[in-house]
Amino acid sequence: MRTLYHWPLDPQSRQARLAMGEKKLRVKLIPIDPWSVDEKFLGIAAEGLPPVLVEVIPGGKITIAGARAICEYAEDHGGKQSLLPGNAGHRAEARRICSWFDGKFQDEVNAYILHERLEKTLTGGGAPDPQTLREGREHLQFHLEYINWLLKDRDWLAGHDFSLADIAAGANISCLDYLGEIPWKNWPKVKEWYQKLKSKPSFRPLLKDHLPGLIPPRYYADLDF
Amino acid sequence: MRTLYHWPLDPQSRQARLAMGEKKLRVKLIPIDPWSVDEKFLGIAAEGLPPVLVEVIPGGKITIAGARAICEYAEDHGGKQSLLPGNAGHRAEARRICSWFDGKFQDEVNAYILHERLEKTLTGGGAPDPQTLREGREHLQFHLEYINWLLKDRDWLAGHDFSLADIAAGANISCLDYLGEIPWKNWPKVKEWYQKLKSKPSFRPLLKDHLPGLIPPRYYADLDF
Repeated sequence: MRTLYHWPLDPQSRQARLAMGEKKLRVKLIPIDPWSVDEKFLGIAAEGLPPVLVEVIPGGKITIAGARAICEYAEDHGGKQSLLPGNAGHRAEARRICSWFDGKFQDEVNAYILHERLEKTLTGGGAPDPQTLREGREHLQFHLEYINWLLKDRDWLAGHDFSLADIAAGANISCLDYLGEIPWKNWPKVKEWYQKLKSKPSFRPLLKDHLPGLIPPRYYADLDF
Repeated sequence: MRTLYHWPLDPQSRQARLAMGEKKLRVKLIPIDPWSVDEKFLGIAAEGLPPVLVEVIPGGKITIAGARAICEYAEDHGGKQSLLPGNAGHRAEARRICSWFDGKFQDEVNAYILHERLEKTLTGGGAPDPQTLREGREHLQFHLEYINWLLKDRDWLAGHDFSLADIAAGANISCLDYLGEIPWKNWPKVKEWYQKLKSKPSFRPLLKDHLPGLIPPRYYADLDF
């Protein structure tokens, strides 16, 4: 039995859900509010933040916190669908892109846009600050340009094959898309990549996410947007 | 030929150096100032921050940015010394601890202490703010307590064997130790683990680091401190 503690619009949680979905590993999802202290959840994982995967195994259980560790764990399960390329150099490229999104994109985009539009709204922190939002959107342009550049001669972000890099990028982009923050018409190549991603069965559950009081634009769940 | 762009007191760069050292992969080290814009370095890696590993291979080169991707790449090289346990659950535990240091420790300790004592000092940002330092040191206590707790029934952080988890933790702790920030006498179990780490040949080059104008305490390089 596997349980994934997650928060629907957390890019890290979405990475974990996508990786589990791609590897066809069934999980029970339990939502966790990342902004309130939940003693029971802290008892499960000292990290105190989703995503956390708990897997019951004979004689005990495995607790894994963080998208990076959960995604690599999912990949370690083997199976038909591989989430990392066979070649060490290409694997490194996929992992480099994952680090880009976990670090740079998180600090330069999410910490501005998601913080202002989700955390502040949902925790009663007041209205989003327009200047911070503007800066976050400027950074987002740079990152979309970077994704666009990567896709110039590639089918997927890290090369010929779908990989954890697409999961990392897709999870982040999808949260911003839920908020209508991606100017798709300026980025046809990025849109084409995201369309392929959206049409994957692992992506479907994410498109059905609905947060009370926070309605996504209609095209959010459309495969042909 | 392998080149590692690094900054001596950057925990991420130190993780990369330790992993390359453990795997006996020879690298040429080139120091990069993380706080100034270096157009040539930006041309090598859009991340713009160390660590970046460049490996020349037949017909091209591989460029890998970020400690996580570089460490996994080093591990992918095989060899006698493995940096990840054989069992998938234990591998997940090692990677979970790496994420702890890359994320939580970075945000709660380094962003306070290293930012105040290194970045501000070296970039002319003024004197460290005592209140921020105090908060960082409080968080550090919590993290030392956590390391201490992990070591209760373990030889190394992720279990019986030395792994990337020890590299992640050791790289972070060693930067703070250079600044005399670790109150060793309160944490004998953590000290014992760190002593084992320090005596590894891969650790030696780190103990020889000296930043102009920033002299480490004498015990920093002592194996028996």
